[in-house]
Amino acid sequence: MSDQFTLSAAVLQTLRDIVGEDKVRLDAESLDTYGKDWTKVHVPKPSAIVFPKTVEQVQAIVRLANEHELALVPSGGRTGLSGGAVAAYGEIVVAFDAMNQISDFNPVDRSVVCQAGVITEQLQQFAQEQGLFYPVDFASSGSSQIGGNIGTNAGGIKVIKYGMTREWVAGLKIVTGSGDILDLNNGLAKNNAGYDLRQLFIGAEGTLGFVVEATMRLTRQPSNLTALVLGVPEFSAIMDVLNTFQSDMDLTAFEFFSEKALEKVVTHNDLRRPFETKAEYYALLEFENTHEDTESLAMTLFERCVEEGWVLDGTMSQSIDQLKNLWRLREDISETISQWTPYKNDLSTVVSRVPGFLQEIETIVNKNYPDFEIIWFGHIGDGNVHLNILKPDELDKEIFLEQCNRVSRWIFEIVEKYRGSVSAEHGVGLLKKSYLPYSRSHTEIALMKQVKQVFDPKGIMNPGKIFD
Amino acid sequence: MSDQFTLSAAVLQTLRDIVGEDKVRLDAESLDTYGKDWTKVHVPKPSAIVFPKTVEQVQAIVRLANEHELALVPSGGRTGLSGGAVAAYGEIVVAFDAMNQISDFNPVDRSVVCQAGVITEQLQQFAQEQGLFYPVDFASSGSSQIGGNIGTNAGGIKVIKYGMTREWVAGLKIVTGSGDILDLNNGLAKNNAGYDLRQLFIGAEGTLGFVVEATMRLTRQPSNLTALVLGVPEFSAIMDVLNTFQSDMDLTAFEFFSEKALEKVVTHNDLRRPFETKAEYYALLEFENTHEDTESLAMTLFERCVEEGWVLDGTMSQSIDQLKNLWRLREDISETISQWTPYKNDLSTVVSRVPGFLQEIETIVNKNYPDFEIIWFGHIGDGNVHLNILKPDELDKEIFLEQCNRVSRWIFEIVEKYRGSVSAEHGVGLLKKSYLPYSRSHTEIALMKQVKQVFDPKGIMNPGKIFD
Repeated sequence: MSDQFTLSAAVLQTLRDIVGEDKVRLDAESLDTYGKDWTKVHVPKPSAIVFPKTVEQVQAIVRLANEHELALVPSGGRTGLSGGAVAAYGEIVVAFDAMNQISDFNPVDRSVVCQAGVITEQLQQFAQEQGLFYPVDFASSGSSQIGGNIGTNAGGIKVIKYGMTREWVAGLKIVTGSGDILDLNNGLAKNNAGYDLRQLFIGAEGTLGFVVEATMRLTRQPSNLTALVLGVPEFSAIMDVLNTFQSDMDLTAFEFFSEKALEKVVTHNDLRRPFETKAEYYALLEFENTHEDTESLAMTLFERCVEEGWVLDGTMSQSIDQLKNLWRLREDISETISQWTPYKNDLSTVVSRVPGFLQEIETIVNKNYPDFEIIWFGHIGDGNVHLNILKPDELDKEIFLEQCNRVSRWIFEIVEKYRGSVSAEHGVGLLKKSYLPYSRSHTEIALMKQVKQVFDPKGIMNPGKIFD
Repeated sequence: MSDQFTLSAAVLQTLRDIVGEDKVRLDAESLDTYGKDWTKVHVPKPSAIVFPKTVEQVQAIVRLANEHELALVPSGGRTGLSGGAVAAYGEIVVAFDAMNQISDFNPVDRSVVCQAGVITEQLQQFAQEQGLFYPVDFASSGSSQIGGNIGTNAGGIKVIKYGMTREWVAGLKIVTGSGDILDLNNGLAKNNAGYDLRQLFIGAEGTLGFVVEATMRLTRQPSNLTALVLGVPEFSAIMDVLNTFQSDMDLTAFEFFSEKALEKVVTHNDLRRPFETKAEYYALLEFENTHEDTESLAMTLFERCVEEGWVLDGTMSQSIDQLKNLWRLREDISETISQWTPYKNDLSTVVSRVPGFLQEIETIVNKNYPDFEIIWFGHIGDGNVHLNILKPDELDKEIFLEQCNRVSRWIFEIVEKYRGSVSAEHGVGLLKKSYLPYSRSHTEIALMKQVKQVFDPKGIMNPGKIFD
């Protein structure tokens, strides 16, 4: 670590006075661990890691940072895929690990107060123990934290039914960049008393203020979740299948993955194919199987899709174990392909335009880099697709990344043409910020910067993330 | 109209050049009609009414207003209850009546593009014609406009299932106070690319910019909606009933009203009591009656509530006509009591705290003004209650209002104590702005003003609404 990233003795002492001697870490391992997220593109170089335990300690840290114009980076589970929690420029990392209490559960309001460092799975389990359900779920829910979920408006696999994290935040306690504490919305279901500032902090990646506490809504547990995996020969038919099912029943999920993805998952995990028939694509549907006629309706719709030629084969889970195994076909993809150093993009457009969108992207990648293998999967019911380009074994990593960066420009031009998003659910962080103008106008970006100025006048809150 | 509210000939000519000669009105009737909303507290005194037909015309009007620092008031259906669309200080009213086109319906995305002046009922009917459903509904949906719904984040009777207007806005075209056009979110379901500025304009009552167009989401039509009206002897038992039903089934509505409200509605309309038994309160529940066992579940829960003593009697609709008639018991209250010059408050707290909240308010009103009759009704499933204080016949209107203003302070102190909202769904406008500090901190209000400064630097967009 170079000297420029060393804090003065006075600042360090004040930090220790605020959080306690043992809650300020400077050791190399901590600096490395807490300075990066899952992206691993930037070299972590924080100046210190602090672990506040209370809202007041966070406030004191922000005030100190204001006084000395020191940059702060919030740190949750660091499972982000856009570099939103990376500290590569001597920032002080404010890690929320020690603020992990759940309190004030109210069964009538179906709400619960979480400190920012509560792990997503911890909240899911807590809800289950109360006979309720916290529906935002994704592969990294075992380590991601609520504060980070809110900062990135996390999505996941149940958005088609339950929406993003935004829908579940009934109240928000924030320490702004000025060091003010805001108590936003107080857990109310209805509140049209002035601007809903809460919404602004959701998805702002900690650039306006830090989430220190949230009142999260819970809901009824779904009953008898049942999954269908269908083999689909053509991409456009996935949309026909979606339309067919969605018109007649409420789905809790509608995911897709390609044969290439499935082949890798079953080869590298202890998993069986859903059925022998191979198809170019697979759709995974999930619904609450509450009545006999729900199941027979699902069968009728499945048969209609087969008759139309949209579906080649299919299987339906008959138990929780089968449900879990079908889900693994989709959920294990990301980890399975990580050994090929995938170049990831998290894109979206409106659902109806997804087929053309995918086609254009495939065409341009194949034309320019015929050796690159493309793995598609994602939340097709929401128009959100994850594009993964795998590194050919023989290709040097640096050269591969360079070529991918070139490809990215072309992909994002297609995103722009389709009026889509350069980051559907992963946020912008450091990795996507140069691509932001493909999704947002210069006027919008200029306004965002002015909004940041209002809440963080010294520019100390996660600086350099989203925009410069 | 005093001279100070007369526009210069040059400005008038430019307005006529922008929208056309016949789209600028200065006649007394138009000024009166378009200068007020349903509140009728302020004397309307706009300087002109303009009827743009295109986004570009709205932009040109805003730019002209910027140049001359002229205040603009957006005007939709003017059904607001907080004075948000009142022009009492010589403002130019921008009426969206001529921008009432629905276009670009997409059945796969279940989305449709509405100009700001599309009437809520027009959108509801359009959705129905497509076999779909636009779920935001309330008493004034026959005249309120989508732009106004978005500006006030309209709620209504189905929020417990479908949420507020906010949930249904997939894209927003805005003309900001600076005259910039923003295209926000492009109809995407998932988009975490930078701050979600769209959210900021929803519920901002036109103070940051004007909504000129919106991409609205539609959903599946509910099937076989069925209502239960239950007689409940004590207020706290309403919460037990809510809890009992909500734990086991999905409700599409959970409303309540008092015996006093029911008595007035059946006396003044051609309506019958739901059943002979009188109760202090009534709960109206609605659900999708899709299966035989749904109905028998509802009956079982009803019986449980009777056994517990929470419910005295009940009735369930057996046809669409019966459903409509049961709903009229609740929906006709507002119009029925209008003859008593009701002093209205639209309050909320978290659901679990509503009983104590109501009790404290009743106590303070009864203690100080024993002659005042209080009519309670509202969306109890969301913690949102409408408090209506009726004017005693013999009391002078001015004196009544003066006394109510005194009562308001006490009520809002209770709101503050319960961390509730001074305006759950009606917005702040002119009428509630002095009460805003009971729901929002001084820091929040200061931040709101700074946010307005970003989007409306000259302060010309609906000035004086929400805050000064």
